[in-house]
Amino acid sequence: MRFHQGLMQMRRYATAVTLRQFGHAHTQTQTQAITHARRGTETTVVRTLASSASPLPELTQISDNVQRGNYAQLNDKDVAHFEQLLGKNHVLTEDLEGYNICFLKRIRGNSKLVLKPGNTQEVAAILRYCNERRLAVVPQGGNTGLVGGSVPICDEIVLSMQRMNKVLSVDEVTGIAIVEAGCILENFDQRARDVGLTVPLDLGAKASCHIGGNVSTNAGGVRVVRYGNLHGSVLGVEAVLANGQVLDLMSNFKKDNTGYHMKHLFIGSEGTLGVVTKLAMLCPHVSKAVNVAFIGLNSFDDVLKTFVSAKRNLGEILSSCELIDELALNTALQQFKFLNSPISGYPFYMLIETSGSNGDHDEEKINQFISQGMERGEILDGTVSGEPGKVQEIWKIREMVPLGLIEKSFCFKYDISLPLRDFYNIVDVMRERCGPLATVVCGYGHLGDSNLHLNVSCEQFNDEIYKRVEPFVYEYTSQLKGSISAEHGIGFLKKDYLHYSKNPVAIQWMRDMKKMFDPNGILNPYKMLN
Amino acid sequence: MRFHQGLMQMRRYATAVTLRQFGHAHTQTQTQAITHARRGTETTVVRTLASSASPLPELTQISDNVQRGNYAQLNDKDVAHFEQLLGKNHVLTEDLEGYNICFLKRIRGNSKLVLKPGNTQEVAAILRYCNERRLAVVPQGGNTGLVGGSVPICDEIVLSMQRMNKVLSVDEVTGIAIVEAGCILENFDQRARDVGLTVPLDLGAKASCHIGGNVSTNAGGVRVVRYGNLHGSVLGVEAVLANGQVLDLMSNFKKDNTGYHMKHLFIGSEGTLGVVTKLAMLCPHVSKAVNVAFIGLNSFDDVLKTFVSAKRNLGEILSSCELIDELALNTALQQFKFLNSPISGYPFYMLIETSGSNGDHDEEKINQFISQGMERGEILDGTVSGEPGKVQEIWKIREMVPLGLIEKSFCFKYDISLPLRDFYNIVDVMRERCGPLATVVCGYGHLGDSNLHLNVSCEQFNDEIYKRVEPFVYEYTSQLKGSISAEHGIGFLKKDYLHYSKNPVAIQWMRDMKKMFDPNGILNPYKMLN
Repeated sequence: MRFHQGLMQMRRYATAVTLRQFGHAHTQTQTQAITHARRGTETTVVRTLASSASPLPELTQISDNVQRGNYAQLNDKDVAHFEQLLGKNHVLTEDLEGYNICFLKRIRGNSKLVLKPGNTQEVAAILRYCNERRLAVVPQGGNTGLVGGSVPICDEIVLSMQRMNKVLSVDEVTGIAIVEAGCILENFDQRARDVGLTVPLDLGAKASCHIGGNVSTNAGGVRVVRYGNLHGSVLGVEAVLANGQVLDLMSNFKKDNTGYHMKHLFIGSEGTLGVVTKLAMLCPHVSKAVNVAFIGLNSFDDVLKTFVSAKRNLGEILSSCELIDELALNTALQQFKFLNSPISGYPFYMLIETSGSNGDHDEEKINQFISQGMERGEILDGTVSGEPGKVQEIWKIREMVPLGLIEKSFCFKYDISLPLRDFYNIVDVMRERCGPLATVVCGYGHLGDSNLHLNVSCEQFNDEIYKRVEPFVYEYTSQLKGSISAEHGIGFLKKDYLHYSKNPVAIQWMRDMKKMFDPNGILNPYKMLN
Repeated sequence: MRFHQGLMQMRRYATAVTLRQFGHAHTQTQTQAITHARRGTETTVVRTLASSASPLPELTQISDNVQRGNYAQLNDKDVAHFEQLLGKNHVLTEDLEGYNICFLKRIRGNSKLVLKPGNTQEVAAILRYCNERRLAVVPQGGNTGLVGGSVPICDEIVLSMQRMNKVLSVDEVTGIAIVEAGCILENFDQRARDVGLTVPLDLGAKASCHIGGNVSTNAGGVRVVRYGNLHGSVLGVEAVLANGQVLDLMSNFKKDNTGYHMKHLFIGSEGTLGVVTKLAMLCPHVSKAVNVAFIGLNSFDDVLKTFVSAKRNLGEILSSCELIDELALNTALQQFKFLNSPISGYPFYMLIETSGSNGDHDEEKINQFISQGMERGEILDGTVSGEPGKVQEIWKIREMVPLGLIEKSFCFKYDISLPLRDFYNIVDVMRERCGPLATVVCGYGHLGDSNLHLNVSCEQFNDEIYKRVEPFVYEYTSQLKGSISAEHGIGFLKKDYLHYSKNPVAIQWMRDMKKMFDPNGILNPYKMLN
């Protein structure tokens, strides 16, 4: 009875895994990186943090040869105006490095002024003034973005949302929360959890990113497979437009069919059409039970079959479905000896999480799903646990994967959506293209959302590999009608590649839209559209 | 042990209910109405169908004193052009009444031409020509809308999507279906069900409405509480713009952050910004088990507590949460003697449906939810069933409620979203305002989505009641920041009330948007914006 033996083995693992402490053997920098890479949602970031001691990069305007837009130059009179408007404490003109440099330390602007409005009216007054004066502005949330979207490129004024950080209300009955844009995601989630709700968005940077930034970039994360993206969860938005108009689209209902659904224009437009100042979010109830399975499989075909089986059998309780290939896992295991994978020797691994309202039911479902998969020979081995410490232990394996790849290597990283049937092919194709030049070519990511993190590692930056990888990876993605930026957006870093995912007609309409909402182009210039 | 006794009583009902045949005692008209009112999603419609034998209404241009826009007059050369483009079979100039009159038989246009394109290129060619010639066009799907949005008001050319009815692909692995706009919702759902999927949208008109019309009106229905609205489920849209450009926004991924999320502009804009020709839909798996509870409660406060308890205890399996008040139920029971409610004598009733992947688990959850509610004295009595025939039987009670109210009365009907805490107050307020002038003032609807159907019945149209009800109901809704049209949209009938739910800034930006996409105003004129 292989089925029963197999299942017993699965459960045995669950109790056999020893809890270990992470972080002890790590430097402060690495610990930061681990925190940020929690749940593996933000992969690129770890490389930079690991090298955070490195000197500041050149100013981006110089390094990337950016032609400054035809904006006015900031003068003392402007600063005095803002000081009168906001109070001197909320107008910064010194020590601006943290606002000028992106989280990846790749983009560095040269802003001379940071403004910290305390409410929507102040945001409106700032933008009205800047629009009249033709002063360029970059809205900034937690500055955790990975495409250089939230920092100045030249000398734009930084509009920091830090002070607009209040959770205005959380309604236990309706599940609707009203929150200011500058509220840190984790704080927002905590307030929701106080009444048994949770924010339907979870990502690595949750301890520092702002909910307004999340909305402005349509942030993804590990809950998309369960709760969908923010276009479904965000019920209302308040945004300040370039001319200082407050566009109140705060209707707080799941059903509201009165007019054009314009709020969606501010979800994912990266602050180029308006500054999100407030929003209404539909928050689901916290799940009473969370179970995680970590399983080994022989082929990507079996991975796909297992995903379909998970959707069918786990259905409404499926809350994450992650893929790690053998090379990705092994690299992490080699780099971090404290990691202990419950299984080894399989070409593919999946991390499947369930969240439900009844632990016994969920356990029964997940056991049945696994035993069926083992019976069919698709799932070869694994571990399952519902014990919170062990759930975290299993997640840590997934979380360390991106770190392993950059620990001692340079790594080309891509964040793409691909049709599931073609999801993994590009890893094989890339292995062939790079040959022995690359040390590791691997793939992992949010299988449940068709979101692959493709990684090509080598000892140090290698122009030959670079040419073999780019623009091939974008062309390949484009041919499959995939997305060249699944989670991270376009910002400054990907604007030259936008055409791989958007056709010329769509890009032209984006330009028209931008021109309509921001005719003087003062909002987040040098981003999104080139 | 009241708890156990109560629960046993609940289960006894489940087997005691006798299946009855519906429809035998009804006229053809009424049967149609029942079909359309299936699941109680479209309440207004039944009044009209019940009186479908009435003579045609006056032309709306005359009855509503509509000033024809400055459009060109259709001539023989135009017709010849379209015949050459589409073939004579697909250009209709006679017997156009069905295309000219709305489902409610309230709006009647005077179009002289119906065009039936077979593909996107033909739609593009039609609009390009009409835009150059300044000929007004009304896109038409299944023509089941309730606000006069899909019929001509004056002499607009009808662009019928009937022929573009193909399901192009359904991917069992990803759950993504690609479908032409003119596909009937029920046919689309059937194709999805063939591979174990379902369209995450279910509404009364499913046998005749088009999926493109659903998307263009952001149709609601009874699955919103589970799957959210179409902004979350529709992954991609192809739309033809007024100038004939094809805007391809068909990226088929849950995660795609490349540029402005413009597809949402075509969801719910009622064909005024472009004609949706194709779309990608994320389809969930069909649930293996469906259970329905029909319960009686003493107060609206208990209704709210029970709703919160349902969200907490049923969580991921909750798929519908409907409210019916005593007067609404009793009116239906009086009018339709064949109806047999398992319980009676309570001020409020709730219909709660669960859909899940394991029938035993779901039954256990729903029993626990009910027994807890009974223990707390919130749920007083009821019936539960998972047997398909009985599930349907219970749904029929809900479905007949709107019919009961119009069977022998005139009925003022409103479709509004209100904050849950204030959800039912308006019914009491309205009772007081109308006094003995009204025969029935009652409320029912999609409690789980904060969507109330407020009904005021009287023997025949009564101007005094009308004045007491309108615009009070809109003012009241507006003061609570509710939505004056939760499901049905604005169309022609509600455009004068738009300002109750949208502020002047938002309406001005809607106008700007309209002007940008359709500078000559040829697309669905006289709708949405007045």
